[in-house]
Amino acid sequence: MSVGTLVLLRHGESVWNAENLFTGWVDVPLSEKGVTEAKRGGVLLREAGVLPEVVHTSLLRRAIGTANLALDAADRHWIPVKRDWRLNERHYGALQGKNKKQTLEEFGEEQFMLWRRSYDTPPPPIEPGSEFSQDADPRYAGLGPDLPLTECLLDVVKRMIPYWESDIVPDLRAGRTVLVAAHGNSLRALVKHLDGVSDEAIAGLNIPTGIPLRYDLDDELKPVTPGGTYLDPDAAADAIKAVANQGR
Amino acid sequence: MSVGTLVLLRHGESVWNAENLFTGWVDVPLSEKGVTEAKRGGVLLREAGVLPEVVHTSLLRRAIGTANLALDAADRHWIPVKRDWRLNERHYGALQGKNKKQTLEEFGEEQFMLWRRSYDTPPPPIEPGSEFSQDADPRYAGLGPDLPLTECLLDVVKRMIPYWESDIVPDLRAGRTVLVAAHGNSLRALVKHLDGVSDEAIAGLNIPTGIPLRYDLDDELKPVTPGGTYLDPDAAADAIKAVANQGR
Repeated sequence: MSVGTLVLLRHGESVWNAENLFTGWVDVPLSEKGVTEAKRGGVLLREAGVLPEVVHTSLLRRAIGTANLALDAADRHWIPVKRDWRLNERHYGALQGKNKKQTLEEFGEEQFMLWRRSYDTPPPPIEPGSEFSQDADPRYAGLGPDLPLTECLLDVVKRMIPYWESDIVPDLRAGRTVLVAAHGNSLRALVKHLDGVSDEAIAGLNIPTGIPLRYDLDDELKPVTPGGTYLDPDAAADAIKAVANQGR
Repeated sequence: MSVGTLVLLRHGESVWNAENLFTGWVDVPLSEKGVTEAKRGGVLLREAGVLPEVVHTSLLRRAIGTANLALDAADRHWIPVKRDWRLNERHYGALQGKNKKQTLEEFGEEQFMLWRRSYDTPPPPIEPGSEFSQDADPRYAGLGPDLPLTECLLDVVKRMIPYWESDIVPDLRAGRTVLVAAHGNSLRALVKHLDGVSDEAIAGLNIPTGIPLRYDLDDELKPVTPGGTYLDPDAAADAIKAVANQGR
């Protein structure tokens, strides 16, 4: 059986995206705009005839809600669901809950961009027990000492790719169309792996919200079209520019 | 490990409940009232401290949406999900899409009540290829000749209880709190089995929408409190009366 189709979907705008706060693992809901984006993502799937047969989500409600809304709009709400913390957004450490613009002003552009975009420099760790930490969250109780207190993109790659290998690849090898509804950085980690993007070049790669990104893969799980294909390429190009300007 | 807690949740009002149409396997969405009911069901779970660790749903969007909304309201949107057609509503055969009041007038009360409430008399089968049949629905493609064309409650028991044994009981035996988000008749089939309700008495048993029904089970999976406990007993008592008067 040939390898199935992979579809990546970054969640729509959350209420904290709208307020320009670092979110990470803080479990905020979609904004009204995010709800609209998610439904439109589902319409794009339906119109393109890209019909997911299984969905993988993070444990965060902005990705779960995006998957639910998009699949309902695509009439695929009934497919099997798998959820895993390893699809979560990058943990933003002590920056979680902080305003991006204020952080930029307080720490300067160099430090700010290092935390946002360097491959291997995480922000300072979050203090356990503080308002936006996850150490008392029951959904992560099984992680024990593996619970991150901060992460750089390299850390996300290290937890994301084992999940890709163990859980997503078998669905693709079974010939299924697989939807992964997740986050800017967990999806960047996956795209880095699929397309062989260098540690430096990944800093400049942005994935727009709410626009399904389709990858057809060969037998070695290499993309047939490098970078994949957005189901709405024009909207994707516009959105990529806007993401790159965040925090400015 | 002791047996976990079972929680049954019947979906809130659908747009066809509101229009008094026989629904069965037709995949209609929740009404606005149904959305409100589902969210309130989740608030009841949270307030009672009944926190599901896994959810089982049918393949129909009114049950899936109820589970999604209730779990989000209970802050349990991140738990594992299992879906199966054997939790679907009873297939209403040729009655699917028909108005209940008109059906009552056309066929008379005796025939009407036989189709609605007899244990082992199904309505006439639906014609394959007709507007409200499911023979071309991809979610049931794997059923082959097992796809029902009509069902009585006995038929629902025959498909529901094997799923209970194979998929729900293992979760309970693992000590989990298990939410089953389903339908009037698939939940009546389960309650009949759990409480040992007779074929005759089950006709008079109605389960209200949107109010979680909690069962604590002993080692033999017998209810500690026969009939279980509604998380809002007063609202349940009122709603049971209203359901009994449907179609009148």
